Amino acid sequence: ACLPDCPSTVRGLQSIFQEQEMTETVHDTEGHGYLATFIGKNGRLVILRVHSQGLVTVDLQCCEGDNIAQVDNLLNALEKKLKSILHGNIRGVKRLPALTRGAAVDRYWPTADGRLVEYDIDRVVYDEDSAYQNIKILHSQQFGNILILNGDVNLAESDLPYTQAIMGRGKENYTGKEVLILGGGDGGILAEAVKLNVYIDQMVIDGCRTHMRKACGSVLDNLKGDCYQVRMTVLSIALFLSRDGTFMVYSVSDSTWEFLQLILDLSIKVLRPTGKYFTQGNCANLTEALALYEEQLGRLSCPVDFSKEVVCVPSYMELKVLLNVAYHIYTVHIHAF
Amino acid sequence: ACLPDCPSTVRGLQSIFQEQEMTETVHDTEGHGYLATFIGKNGRLVILRVHSQGLVTVDLQCCEGDNIAQVDNLLNALEKKLKSILHGNIRGVKRLPALTRGAAVDRYWPTADGRLVEYDIDRVVYDEDSAYQNIKILHSQQFGNILILNGDVNLAESDLPYTQAIMGRGKENYTGKEVLILGGGDGGILAEAVKLNVYIDQMVIDGCRTHMRKACGSVLDNLKGDCYQVRMTVLSIALFLSRDGTFMVYSVSDSTWEFLQLILDLSIKVLRPTGKYFTQGNCANLTEALALYEEQLGRLSCPVDFSKEVVCVPSYMELKVLLNVAYHIYTVHIHAF
Repeated sequence: ACLPDCPSTVRGLQSIFQEQEMTETVHDTEGHGYLATFIGKNGRLVILRVHSQGLVTVDLQCCEGDNIAQVDNLLNALEKKLKSILHGNIRGVKRLPALTRGAAVDRYWPTADGRLVEYDIDRVVYDEDSAYQNIKILHSQQFGNILILNGDVNLAESDLPYTQAIMGRGKENYTGKEVLILGGGDGGILAEAVKLNVYIDQMVIDGCRTHMRKACGSVLDNLKGDCYQVRMTVLSIALFLSRDGTFMVYSVSDSTWEFLQLILDLSIKVLRPTGKYFTQGNCANLTEALALYEEQLGRLSCPVDFSKEVVCVPSYMELKVLLNVAYHIYTVHIHAF
Repeated sequence: ACLPDCPSTVRGLQSIFQEQEMTETVHDTEGHGYLATFIGKNGRLVILRVHSQGLVTVDLQCCEGDNIAQVDNLLNALEKKLKSILHGNIRGVKRLPALTRGAAVDRYWPTADGRLVEYDIDRVVYDEDSAYQNIKILHSQQFGNILILNGDVNLAESDLPYTQAIMGRGKENYTGKEVLILGGGDGGILAEAVKLNVYIDQMVIDGCRTHMRKACGSVLDNLKGDCYQVRMTVLSIALFLSRDGTFMVYSVSDSTWEFLQLILDLSIKVLRPTGKYFTQGNCANLTEALALYEEQLGRLSCPVDFSKEVVCVPSYMELKVLLNVAYHIYTVHIHAF
């Protein structure tokens, strides 16, 4: 980009702000480029900066109820004028979609690696605080209802690929196996699996039974079926220490790293040699966390072997916070031996 | 949210800005809430607004090279102070990831329905203007190299599901068939298909041959193989009018709607009764455009039948501009009869 002569660039744009009857304030940045703010009708605010590297940024804020066509026209006029002032000598122009803040529906659920992602959420279906967490079910135009626990996207009705991947789709034979699901209150794995004990938040079950039926089907209508039983409790280690059956163990907890380590070790201890432990690792981009995870697998009280798989889950737009569900989940299949 | 007493909220925050030696300017919004700007060292700017509905927004801008830890501390201090002033009587606090502007690598490629999406792009691999379009190949940590034509994400090395879906994966028998790919310069379909004529931008081929090998393999190394031939030309209708063989036709053009209509009609005319036409429709959310598309299918010069399919393509984070590739592409399989 060619750095324009700053004063003449600014003068060139001033006529636009004057036409809009906006009040200009020029600020002293102590040598960090030109910075002016312009206040217009309806609470409109424009922040104009000309940075030292030839970058010109224009921020426009408007309030709810403002005339969006007028706002767009103002941005169009500024862009056109800038192109004219700089005689087309511009490396690139980028206009980003508006960020909406304070709306009844929050559409921004950033990824685990801190990227900004806007979902097509149009409706709050369920929003309650249980004793353990905040439980939201939000409706997305394309993904159906999405379960969000404490701000982390857990599962959408579109996300059968996640459930299939964490269950080792087509690779595992579940006939006659006992299955323990830790977490999994959305019912997705339960809907796919055979025999299990589930430790989950009753309110997650209540919300999902009603609003996530494409994921859980009818398995949450009754907490006990012919071949499964759903138990709600705060996760305790008692079960692990008192039982020694053959378990398929699914850990779908969104707890802290230390907690996961504890569960991992306890789970491996309860597994018989032919038992398997399936869990999500992390998003593909969090390579350090993934390396740490694999390192921990070598430190368990029993030696284990493991395989991993990267899967693409529709609603994850990538990644989730901590070790929770991720766009590319890294499914660890651990085999005790 | 409980609307705080505005003057006392602002006074409560002022001490933070004073500690940071920031210069305050209060602006007259003519009744549209409280608005103040604060300029600090290194060109830092904070815009503080207290809106009439109890919404408090804080925007912080900083320049390249600023101390990010200090910036985060400032935001933390403001959040803590606000919680204290409002005695925890806050419906919600949301802090969004920073937007980076003017960087060498542009990470923002909004979806077709106008949502803001930040990709994990870390490197520009290729960026050239051909006679027809701007061709970018950008490296994503998780998706591999991504081909972006005139700002539209076309294909990433992760996107075999797209190629498989548009080819009717597993459902079509290609033995002995002639295949015409319109567009497809990324080589993905060519790498999967048998016999074809391709009309593409030579520079797209050049870029993809080198940088998208996970998508195209070696098929672009030679423009003629045992069973295929790659031809570059500006798309003309001559071929359609002069041939009447059995074609499998793939339209992967990112042209305008009218152009697509023309191609669609010409393609159907050249198809024999057993021929099939595969194309992308649009993203799942653009329901009006999809309805318009289906309406057009009823107006072709030959009667056609069609089926459709929604697929999830890893790199699409949803949608693309116009009728181009989309996260959920809507694949139309048209059967002339």
